[in-house]
Amino acid sequence: MPSAAVFGAAGYTGALSAKLLHDHPSFELRWITARSDAGRRLDELYPQYRVPLELEQMNLDHHAVVDAAIVAYPHGAAAELVAELRERGVRVVDLSADFRLRDVAVYEEWYRPHPEQELLTDAVYGLPELYREQIRGADLVANPGCYPTATILALAPLARAGLIDDVVIDAKSGVSGAGRAASDATHFVTVDENVNAYGVPRHRHTPEIEQELAALGADVRITFTPHLLPLDQGELVSCYVTSVEGPDAELDLAEMYREAYEHEPFVELAHTPPGVRAVRETNLCRISVHEDERTGRLIVFGAIDNLWKGAASQAVQNLNLMFGLSEGEGIS
Amino acid sequence: MPSAAVFGAAGYTGALSAKLLHDHPSFELRWITARSDAGRRLDELYPQYRVPLELEQMNLDHHAVVDAAIVAYPHGAAAELVAELRERGVRVVDLSADFRLRDVAVYEEWYRPHPEQELLTDAVYGLPELYREQIRGADLVANPGCYPTATILALAPLARAGLIDDVVIDAKSGVSGAGRAASDATHFVTVDENVNAYGVPRHRHTPEIEQELAALGADVRITFTPHLLPLDQGELVSCYVTSVEGPDAELDLAEMYREAYEHEPFVELAHTPPGVRAVRETNLCRISVHEDERTGRLIVFGAIDNLWKGAASQAVQNLNLMFGLSEGEGIS
Amino acid sequence: MPSAAVFGAAGYTGALSAKLLHDHPSFELRWITARSDAGRRLDELYPQYRVPLELEQMNLDHHAVVDAAIVAYPHGAAAELVAELRERGVRVVDLSADFRLRDVAVYEEWYRPHPEQELLTDAVYGLPELYREQIRGADLVANPGCYPTATILALAPLARAGLIDDVVIDAKSGVSGAGRAASDATHFVTVDENVNAYGVPRHRHTPEIEQELAALGADVRITFTPHLLPLDQGELVSCYVTSVEGPDAELDLAEMYREAYEHEPFVELAHTPPGVRAVRETNLCRISVHEDERTGRLIVFGAIDNLWKGAASQAVQNLNLMFGLSEGEGIS
Amino acid sequence: MPSAAVFGAAGYTGALSAKLLHDHPSFELRWITARSDAGRRLDELYPQYRVPLELEQMNLDHHAVVDAAIVAYPHGAAAELVAELRERGVRVVDLSADFRLRDVAVYEEWYRPHPEQELLTDAVYGLPELYREQIRGADLVANPGCYPTATILALAPLARAGLIDDVVIDAKSGVSGAGRAASDATHFVTVDENVNAYGVPRHRHTPEIEQELAALGADVRITFTPHLLPLDQGELVSCYVTSVEGPDAELDLAEMYREAYEHEPFVELAHTPPGVRAVRETNLCRISVHEDERTGRLIVFGAIDNLWKGAASQAVQNLNLMFGLSEGEGIS
Repeated sequence: MPSAAVFGAAGYTGALSAKLLHDHPSFELRWITARSDAGRRLDELYPQYRVPLELEQMNLDHHAVVDAAIVAYPHGAAAELVAELRERGVRVVDLSADFRLRDVAVYEEWYRPHPEQELLTDAVYGLPELYREQIRGADLVANPGCYPTATILALAPLARAGLIDDVVIDAKSGVSGAGRAASDATHFVTVDENVNAYGVPRHRHTPEIEQELAALGADVRITFTPHLLPLDQGELVSCYVTSVEGPDAELDLAEMYREAYEHEPFVELAHTPPGVRAVRETNLCRISVHEDERTGRLIVFGAIDNLWKGAASQAVQNLNLMFGLSEGEGIS
Repeated sequence: MPSAAVFGAAGYTGALSAKLLHDHPSFELRWITARSDAGRRLDELYPQYRVPLELEQMNLDHHAVVDAAIVAYPHGAAAELVAELRERGVRVVDLSADFRLRDVAVYEEWYRPHPEQELLTDAVYGLPELYREQIRGADLVANPGCYPTATILALAPLARAGLIDDVVIDAKSGVSGAGRAASDATHFVTVDENVNAYGVPRHRHTPEIEQELAALGADVRITFTPHLLPLDQGELVSCYVTSVEGPDAELDLAEMYREAYEHEPFVELAHTPPGVRAVRETNLCRISVHEDERTGRLIVFGAIDNLWKGAASQAVQNLNLMFGLSEGEGIS
Repeated sequence: MPSAAVFGAAGYTGALSAKLLHDHPSFELRWITARSDAGRRLDELYPQYRVPLELEQMNLDHHAVVDAAIVAYPHGAAAELVAELRERGVRVVDLSADFRLRDVAVYEEWYRPHPEQELLTDAVYGLPELYREQIRGADLVANPGCYPTATILALAPLARAGLIDDVVIDAKSGVSGAGRAASDATHFVTVDENVNAYGVPRHRHTPEIEQELAALGADVRITFTPHLLPLDQGELVSCYVTSVEGPDAELDLAEMYREAYEHEPFVELAHTPPGVRAVRETNLCRISVHEDERTGRLIVFGAIDNLWKGAASQAVQNLNLMFGLSEGEGIS
Repeated sequence: MPSAAVFGAAGYTGALSAKLLHDHPSFELRWITARSDAGRRLDELYPQYRVPLELEQMNLDHHAVVDAAIVAYPHGAAAELVAELRERGVRVVDLSADFRLRDVAVYEEWYRPHPEQELLTDAVYGLPELYREQIRGADLVANPGCYPTATILALAPLARAGLIDDVVIDAKSGVSGAGRAASDATHFVTVDENVNAYGVPRHRHTPEIEQELAALGADVRITFTPHLLPLDQGELVSCYVTSVEGPDAELDLAEMYREAYEHEPFVELAHTPPGVRAVRETNLCRISVHEDERTGRLIVFGAIDNLWKGAASQAVQNLNLMFGLSEGEGIS
């Protein structure tokens, strides 16, 4: 049974990664690390996960002696740890943005100087619905961002069909997407009975979405605007697509999506706009597609749980593929 | 002091109208009516409003002997009552959609056969920021819908400047916008920890927004998609505008909005995207405008309290104008 | 593999029972029934449960041909269905109050005339932590109420030790405890940003708690007051115990509770007051016990998920015992 | 018009105090101070309050040149500032606990060494319903804690009648009661869908409640347990009273409370258990009283808005009395 570690397990996505690996039938979770919470037990911080392990200060002499690692570090900090783990032969899923953008110039425009550029070519973008085969052979997988996961799955069939001329993405996220750091912005009293946009007009998930849409054939500049909502877990993207040719009487959107996803275990199609409750604590992305005949615009909704399919359970889905296990083990 | 009645005061917008008129220094609230809740006191249904009046079964022989009325009836039902009140000389603000659309064919396409078409020409669209002078002389004012109020105020400066080529409006509303009727859709357990779009792709507020944008010079077909959020009061519209000429280096959006609204007592401009908490229980619309230089798209946010500026306090603002009172009396 | 049916599967507890039996490795869920929602699929009403079965109108000729049934009917209506199922040899867990009170006079004082009194002697009170052996041999199990489940588990060690002289129970519940029926009381806008007591001073769970405390040796009249909270699932009972002898320096409460529950798979002890998030979507009851040295009073908190341990997963726990399966199958 | 300052106006209670004084017809708010937020405008931190003043670093040479001050400082820190303000002749309402406990030994047992003991005898406990006359002549008023405000008002009639033998107080508070400091405990994701007790078994509001009950004639040791709820503003206390003589057929509780409060402008009696929504953003305390005939226990509920009657609006009520103004000016 392959052994595993989670680096940065005190945050929301790291802690859930630890819980999923701890309960996983085919991985043995051996280490979990944290910085300021080192010395505490994870089930003290997250009683609901029931992981009776102590968070340790990171020490590569010990902690890199595992087969698999999930890294839940901040951008930039992740790259260096990933490089050290790779040197020691550990196969890694990285939850940060550090290896998601294939073009280092784009990364550096939106983030910061990239400390480990040579690893970029090794990294596979960890969206199994697009890159399943590459992930199977990968040693380093860049787990997608939560918004890109929902958005790309929602738009992929249209992008492949060459239908996207322009797209506006209005995204709504629960507060766990902002992470565990306590701040004015995540204080209950700030969020409760409120809703507002943030990251206007340049949210960092923009280039990641554009990269993958381009890879699918849709070379567009998107407008992407996230909003913070008073709920804990859950993310909805509302995608407004101006199609290349206008409304097409022959176009059977429902059939196009059914064909695209009928064999995908973690994509679920719906006739009505999905709510995030329907995917809470699952690895599923639930999608509905609609045509507005008055305007010719196509409207696609995608709902995920940002901590699950948007981060930790998708990381485990990737690990399952990397280690030749059944794709849904431990997450369905 | 003019006397007033509220018809349909058991629902959310009617009850708040009653509270505002009850506390108003220059109106005397004489009657409030309801159907199934007749016989109960309003402060039993809404203790927070502290209106110690009994809800009565509607009886025009009594209740039409007032100077002013707010009608909070369902679409269609409102038109008939409004007609009877007008015959008796009562000046009316109607909260329904029955007199908002100037083109009866458009009304009948989106709603139902119109029972009182001849009154349409008398009705003034009750958005004081656009029609203040006409409201001053009006006997019948059609109070705008909540979404149109926020959207039209957010877009008016761009529409007047001829800048709108296309617009996507993604709207988010608290549950009070769905009214007091108890249903699966308004059950706490349905809404809590959830978010989803509804009324896709044809929400009835669409033609109302298009009518007013056209009146301002922007003859466009809009895409309008509302979403239900887990909060009680508050509404945010996120408007994504494709401008006619693309990004204009000379265009000073902030200045354009400042000029448009500097004398408006109930429009508030902000530098950052507004949250609905900032306008809770006020007659204010809070707006921010942004330009996305990458795409040339203009993004405008408008936040209101759907029960206040989106309904009841705007109705009182209209009554104030109709009766020659100070516009903000009783609502600021 | 024993076959199973859920009667009344459109409500919250029935639907979750159906989901748990549908996913259960050792039961085959064959039928689910409903009244007004008959003809709809359960995954349309509850997409998150992913049970692709149609709700059928109850027809005992078909539906009683199963080995096991969970009955999720209203009080009174349940008794008659349970009697018919027992006549046909179906082993039943009943979620209603109809078979919980062993004294028919008490039942009739708090509820209504009991239609099936002769079955009362057959029924076992379905709290496995107290009646595990009797449940193993039972054909009819009365599943406890949600408040009694948390309260009795919280107080059982003190009751057995003869320490309870008087007890005040202040209970807090999420809205799902009020059921799926849409009403003013369950409307989002009523509950949101609110908290209030209800059922004062005579809530129907009172005699059920008193019956079981008496069976454990504490023959007391309790004060039990539930409150409605703005959350969906979860229930917390705060129990304030005046002990028989006042504070006892020798009394080791923590040790008493550890001994009582160390072999119980679904009772979890905590050092700090439990939150309901820690037991959400689990069959666990999480308990902490404290002594107030100033007053000598003992304070015990018990947290459960009202839909799980308070209803559906406890019903499955009971079915597992009745059918000789591992107690935690399908619920842990 | 008397001038005023608010010290510590960046926190929740200080900011609301500033808003109420800014809008007050008979005070001129001249200064507001803060530590880490100095230099920012209050309407940037709290747009909903619309106070266009800058938060300044405290400088007594400037800021003490006012007639009235509200001090919203932490315990201990407040005492020293209050002493300096009193030396300069400023009349002060202090929101901290520093001058609430008349017995310095009790203060030091529950808090810390008291730095300004000699001022204790000057301070009046600022609950106008009990100490209106003393407040009228006071230069230093200790504003009550939020829990004590609701609890003492709920129990005062019973305490005066000598009926309280023992009392359990189970209190529920919204998150704003925990203050603006961002922490794990106030993070949205911690609080949402949760409820738990805290401060068990020794919350610091205990001696304050006991002091005032004793002053009213009820010399009891109370059990007081607060709980944190997923709402922003609002506080409910559920008081379970064992009465001295058991149930008294002659006792007319409703009449006793009506007599006690019929002339109080800010106490409101209800027949059914009050919800906190009914008092949101008001200076009211809403109370209901019930007798459980089965147990003889009396149950009293008291609901307030913790930021208003529990802090800022009660502070203004006190200032109004101190300066000979109408008691409700600026807060009703």
